[in-house]
Amino acid sequence: MKKRKVAVLGATGTVGQRFISLLAGHPWFDLAALTASDRSAGKRYGDAVHWLLATDPPDGVMDMTLEPTGADVDAEICFSALPSEAAEEHEAALAKAGRHVFTNASTHRMDPDVPLLLAEVNFDHVRALEAQRRDRRWSGSIVANGNCTAIHLSLALAPLQHDFGIERLVVTTMQALSGASYPGVPSLDTLDNVVPFISGEEEKVEAETRKFLGAWDGRRFVPADIAMSVHCNRVTVRDGHTETVSVALRGRPGVDEVKRSLRAFTGRPQERGLPSAPKRPIVVREEPDRPQPVLDRDVERGMASVVGRVREDPVLGTKFVVLGHNTIRGAAGASVLNAELLVAEGCLG
Amino acid sequence: MKKRKVAVLGATGTVGQRFISLLAGHPWFDLAALTASDRSAGKRYGDAVHWLLATDPPDGVMDMTLEPTGADVDAEICFSALPSEAAEEHEAALAKAGRHVFTNASTHRMDPDVPLLLAEVNFDHVRALEAQRRDRRWSGSIVANGNCTAIHLSLALAPLQHDFGIERLVVTTMQALSGASYPGVPSLDTLDNVVPFISGEEEKVEAETRKFLGAWDGRRFVPADIAMSVHCNRVTVRDGHTETVSVALRGRPGVDEVKRSLRAFTGRPQERGLPSAPKRPIVVREEPDRPQPVLDRDVERGMASVVGRVREDPVLGTKFVVLGHNTIRGAAGASVLNAELLVAEGCLG
Amino acid sequence: MKKRKVAVLGATGTVGQRFISLLAGHPWFDLAALTASDRSAGKRYGDAVHWLLATDPPDGVMDMTLEPTGADVDAEICFSALPSEAAEEHEAALAKAGRHVFTNASTHRMDPDVPLLLAEVNFDHVRALEAQRRDRRWSGSIVANGNCTAIHLSLALAPLQHDFGIERLVVTTMQALSGASYPGVPSLDTLDNVVPFISGEEEKVEAETRKFLGAWDGRRFVPADIAMSVHCNRVTVRDGHTETVSVALRGRPGVDEVKRSLRAFTGRPQERGLPSAPKRPIVVREEPDRPQPVLDRDVERGMASVVGRVREDPVLGTKFVVLGHNTIRGAAGASVLNAELLVAEGCLG
Amino acid sequence: MKKRKVAVLGATGTVGQRFISLLAGHPWFDLAALTASDRSAGKRYGDAVHWLLATDPPDGVMDMTLEPTGADVDAEICFSALPSEAAEEHEAALAKAGRHVFTNASTHRMDPDVPLLLAEVNFDHVRALEAQRRDRRWSGSIVANGNCTAIHLSLALAPLQHDFGIERLVVTTMQALSGASYPGVPSLDTLDNVVPFISGEEEKVEAETRKFLGAWDGRRFVPADIAMSVHCNRVTVRDGHTETVSVALRGRPGVDEVKRSLRAFTGRPQERGLPSAPKRPIVVREEPDRPQPVLDRDVERGMASVVGRVREDPVLGTKFVVLGHNTIRGAAGASVLNAELLVAEGCLG
Repeated sequence: MKKRKVAVLGATGTVGQRFISLLAGHPWFDLAALTASDRSAGKRYGDAVHWLLATDPPDGVMDMTLEPTGADVDAEICFSALPSEAAEEHEAALAKAGRHVFTNASTHRMDPDVPLLLAEVNFDHVRALEAQRRDRRWSGSIVANGNCTAIHLSLALAPLQHDFGIERLVVTTMQALSGASYPGVPSLDTLDNVVPFISGEEEKVEAETRKFLGAWDGRRFVPADIAMSVHCNRVTVRDGHTETVSVALRGRPGVDEVKRSLRAFTGRPQERGLPSAPKRPIVVREEPDRPQPVLDRDVERGMASVVGRVREDPVLGTKFVVLGHNTIRGAAGASVLNAELLVAEGCLG
Repeated sequence: MKKRKVAVLGATGTVGQRFISLLAGHPWFDLAALTASDRSAGKRYGDAVHWLLATDPPDGVMDMTLEPTGADVDAEICFSALPSEAAEEHEAALAKAGRHVFTNASTHRMDPDVPLLLAEVNFDHVRALEAQRRDRRWSGSIVANGNCTAIHLSLALAPLQHDFGIERLVVTTMQALSGASYPGVPSLDTLDNVVPFISGEEEKVEAETRKFLGAWDGRRFVPADIAMSVHCNRVTVRDGHTETVSVALRGRPGVDEVKRSLRAFTGRPQERGLPSAPKRPIVVREEPDRPQPVLDRDVERGMASVVGRVREDPVLGTKFVVLGHNTIRGAAGASVLNAELLVAEGCLG
Repeated sequence: MKKRKVAVLGATGTVGQRFISLLAGHPWFDLAALTASDRSAGKRYGDAVHWLLATDPPDGVMDMTLEPTGADVDAEICFSALPSEAAEEHEAALAKAGRHVFTNASTHRMDPDVPLLLAEVNFDHVRALEAQRRDRRWSGSIVANGNCTAIHLSLALAPLQHDFGIERLVVTTMQALSGASYPGVPSLDTLDNVVPFISGEEEKVEAETRKFLGAWDGRRFVPADIAMSVHCNRVTVRDGHTETVSVALRGRPGVDEVKRSLRAFTGRPQERGLPSAPKRPIVVREEPDRPQPVLDRDVERGMASVVGRVREDPVLGTKFVVLGHNTIRGAAGASVLNAELLVAEGCLG
Repeated sequence: MKKRKVAVLGATGTVGQRFISLLAGHPWFDLAALTASDRSAGKRYGDAVHWLLATDPPDGVMDMTLEPTGADVDAEICFSALPSEAAEEHEAALAKAGRHVFTNASTHRMDPDVPLLLAEVNFDHVRALEAQRRDRRWSGSIVANGNCTAIHLSLALAPLQHDFGIERLVVTTMQALSGASYPGVPSLDTLDNVVPFISGEEEKVEAETRKFLGAWDGRRFVPADIAMSVHCNRVTVRDGHTETVSVALRGRPGVDEVKRSLRAFTGRPQERGLPSAPKRPIVVREEPDRPQPVLDRDVERGMASVVGRVREDPVLGTKFVVLGHNTIRGAAGASVLNAELLVAEGCLG
């Protein structure tokens, strides 16, 4: 199979770096272009990037030349790690120009015709692309990922929503520093500290989770009817968001039923054996003190959500902890998996 | 006024050190004895302690000789920082021998005749001491403090319980390392990590909060009828527990009413101007990103609970964040304040 | 005694905050003005500052109005926490306009007529002020502090230089995050990491230490003739720089002689009992594992250097560890002490 | 080639875990036995271990049964991660019983007939095994690794010793938490702190480095004649020791000559293409702020020393920073490479 040309938009940031790392040696995709703001365009990637991953950059990438982000990028698929304003400026133009944009930016996530795709959970949302292309007169498309916190929450909730139905939930997050990109959180704010606030995050998690778990009715997205309260906190962890979840499920299933539902969960990426698909999208652990970021964030190459401490909740019925890698499954890895799915399903032509 | 002789039981641990630091120069109490396990008894305090507080130990204390913990300690009031087994062995014996024991150990907290005292909240619980002395034939007494997490939660909930009534709540904690004493949590478990489990803690917080907010009916403690779900986590913070709280209040008061209730709260320690009483037992902050451990744990000399982010909760009605110093108001400081209150009220004879 | 009016220039940064905290309730100085860049001037201090100290800001300060930094500030003494460019622009103008500027900026530190003053060590350097005023036609003056690392190193070396003479030394520093101000070091660079580089720091420490320990010969500063090699590192500590020192002393004194020399050291601030003077400018500890930032940085209210592990060095003869608070004695506190000394000595008229 | 049976002694600790991780799927070695203290012997490995590595344990290992450490272990090669006392008790007995012991324990490191082997540096030291077997009447052998700090220091010094000769050096280390094993350093000692002391470490680094860089004269080890001063510190880093080095080289070579020497260095493991050999045993970086633990510890799968900031030293002539993974190249990986080398060279029969 001929590899498809792909570009990473906004390649110098933490999510851009993850994209590059995940696309190196990808069996279907050929990393053909890296873009950056006009300020960095023209530079050698290695001179412009402050590489932050523990693994060295893939061979060759450091010598690629950064292009300005623009609609003429020579790639069929564009993975976007653009900041919001740049996403606003460029993503629709790229889609109009025939590119398939898989974006991490929040800009288009809640657009009424943009699928917020979580590959195991709501593949049928891609049906919105027909409307998107028709109404916007685009030959390309935009498919969005959710916020890193919403992705892992929704992945853990999806089987419960399917098997039981969800009435309401209360979630508290302890989010990693890499979620704020670089330079991000100043060290004086994080050493020996917790910051109980992340601007705009609680609203995003609530809205996006409802969209993930909702339906496309042929004309619009109908959000899941779930009452949700989210408390977001920043903690001193490099990668891996931890979330405590108290949830009311219909029929009040027991702890064993809940675990069975979580463990049994798979979706199209597993059926089709996509290159980036985790074997187990949800890993359930039995130890009393797991999941922990340092021990569990890299399980299934960072592509799974790890659930632990499933137990009865005296207020809402069921509670558990879910943890996932925020820049892999929570960002770049989710986009790559989405792109693989659309390729495998023939949705990109 | 002649100062009363006091002892610190279990003086070498982190809570013992806090007691010593708080009792230095105390206007009513004279630190007359320090006790330790048989292994350390006989040693100079300075040779036995691994002093962990940022402030140097008070003059003279380092040269005091550690006594074995036992019923013959020469002090009217004993502040206990004993581990559970030692508390089991010694506290009742001391009370029998006429000492007034103010304890941080969990051993007697849920005893049916031991007041779990939170000075601003449930002073009337001291009426249980009559039954305690009579039934146990003690000339002394035991008064317990709650768990550090339960104390700050209950302090924040007390005015809401009084002014509105509490139906149910979901709490997630992010607890400091000093709560696990020394050596406590290994650094390999805490660097770049969150541990979503503290053994026995969730059960303690739920039971103790209900006892704090409950009533003494003349014969027994009637716990408050509140459904409660607690998720406990250990984070990389030296001192200061942070708790996110979602709570259903009767009558669904608005955010401003809730803040007014919290701000207006005072109790007997403030009325009587006790030496260790915070001027404001609950400090309410308006900034979107407060309270934070590093900035707020030492407010009111560590004796207050700091509440922030009071807002509407889509599931339960009201939510907020509460933070407090776990070894001052959450442990040693609470005991000292309890002792001051009982002295001021004439309950110790 | 009537208090002298003082201003803090660059009042919103981390050093500016320390100045404010140290000047609150100062017996000789009256905090009359706070300045900031034009962008913040006109704002209420409380609205412009991101307060980072664990202690709340002194009463009243939050309501002061920030003035633009300029030569017309209404204060006799100006404590400068200005960044380099602003210091370049304003400090000389202020001195010309009759203000006495005590500065933390590096701009004028190495000027041939500006005393780099370390109050216990080189008071005679103030004789340079005559030349400064005469040659520059200033009615005011500029007196500089050293870099935080150079201050604590020089304080520890001063008695050794005096009592034995120093030939050469090798120093490795482990410096705190607050030394990089705010936002400063990104948390992703510091969590689970050491950064073995601080731009320009090694050169500053070497040059300033030689100036501190050198002489004013009536016309110019003659740097001490000491060969010095400095390795600077940033570690994950909030406050308190730790430095390992290997030093060749003339006459190869024994460990006990070295400790005696360090312990016996005092200077004019101690003789005159200045308000901010530490009782012991150098505290020598005997424990094998001290000094440590978290335990020792606040000793003598952060105004001392703490030395430990004095022992024989197989290569250079003597080695030890020195630690000190970088924003108190290493910055704001040093300036305040310098100002007190010049007031007490009648050098400010 | 038939795989050789190997055992890991002391398999539950942090170094034991690294051994297991490195031996999984090893092309030459078959992990046949895991041993532990009598307390854990008989347990399933998965029930006895507190697994601390970010990668999950290899398949099958968790179900192996722990054996008591003893001379009858069924393995030709024993990798020892035993604590000192257990090493004292068992290692010689195993060698007597014909096992080849590759040990991380400090017990036998300085024995006059035990090679302290660093595979690229001093292969000729294995000639001591003849004397060892003859004099001790052993059919097996003991080969030791150095201390983690000494290994990376000696690896970086070896080419400089060879190409120029070393006169003396001053080293300051910033060592990772995993070097103290588990539970190791309490988190209250490490958060927001540096501990400027590691018991016994400075002496070990000095003695072992001299042995590494010394010679076997046919009858005994002659240590290298190098004056050395080492300052050891514990910092808040999970893995990766950082060391600042000031060194006097004969002939005072320039910075470029030093870098060339470091970069050109290889040894027998590279010549023979051993499975665990790093391609480059010393990686030299040019960036001003490297090496850093979080970015560089895993280079060459943790088997290299990473050197940066090579520059002139005003006191000793040359200075640089060296960093290496302390539990891979600094412990388990060094032993595995040593064993591979002895197998490849036919030294194990």
